[in-house]
Amino acid sequence: MRKIEHIGIAVKNLKTSNELFEKLFGNPPYKQESVESEGVNTSFFMNGPNKIELLEATNPESPIAKFLEKKGEGIHHIAFDVENITTEIQRLKAEGFIVLNEIPKKGADNKLVVFLHPKSTNGVLIELCQEIH
Amino acid sequence: MRKIEHIGIAVKNLKTSNELFEKLFGNPPYKQESVESEGVNTSFFMNGPNKIELLEATNPESPIAKFLEKKGEGIHHIAFDVENITTEIQRLKAEGFIVLNEIPKKGADNKLVVFLHPKSTNGVLIELCQEIH
Repeated sequence: MRKIEHIGIAVKNLKTSNELFEKLFGNPPYKQESVESEGVNTSFFMNGPNKIELLEATNPESPIAKFLEKKGEGIHHIAFDVENITTEIQRLKAEGFIVLNEIPKKGADNKLVVFLHPKSTNGVLIELCQEIH
Repeated sequence: MRKIEHIGIAVKNLKTSNELFEKLFGNPPYKQESVESEGVNTSFFMNGPNKIELLEATNPESPIAKFLEKKGEGIHHIAFDVENITTEIQRLKAEGFIVLNEIPKKGADNKLVVFLHPKSTNGVLIELCQEIH
């Protein structure tokens, strides 16, 4: 794990929150993207070597819709940048972490992603992501 | 705001969680520190340009004890590195953000810190921190 790639924040309304985070960072999102398989619209803000991803649900079955219902708006996950997602999965499984999807899937922002179950990581939903070249 | 300085994670037991995060990162914490005024014991892990701070309550009145009671273990705050905390406070106040302490206070890891109220930031507790030289 080489750095925090991004922090994912669940929001009710992407447009309103884009305006809010633009005020916070002094810059607009550099990218907006929908990930249909996850039922989300996303926007990304640059912050030096890191990013902030805002996530809005596009349907009631979306993991983000369920998160908002249960916990309200707030931090949803931390994503760490990894060089080789396959070897990281093997290493973390051997250390006892629970991997939610063993086969990396295509996430937003041109990444292969896997998630670790929060019950194995002190309640924190952790994403590993590897840039697709 | 120049980067994510650290992410603060509330934990029940610092010793157990230090072992868990050492497995996650492959490295032990580089520092452990108590902040009496905040009622916390902390440990810090390096992750490239970023850090992870684990926070354990030292008394039932600690903000971390209250957070754990209400929400359980998990992400407590995001801290952004700023060059000049005083000018950032003024800028963010003018943008409508609610600053919890207008006079920066001494936090862990040799920093001056202020917090923004989560109700002005989509439910996210945001810390600004400036290195003390």
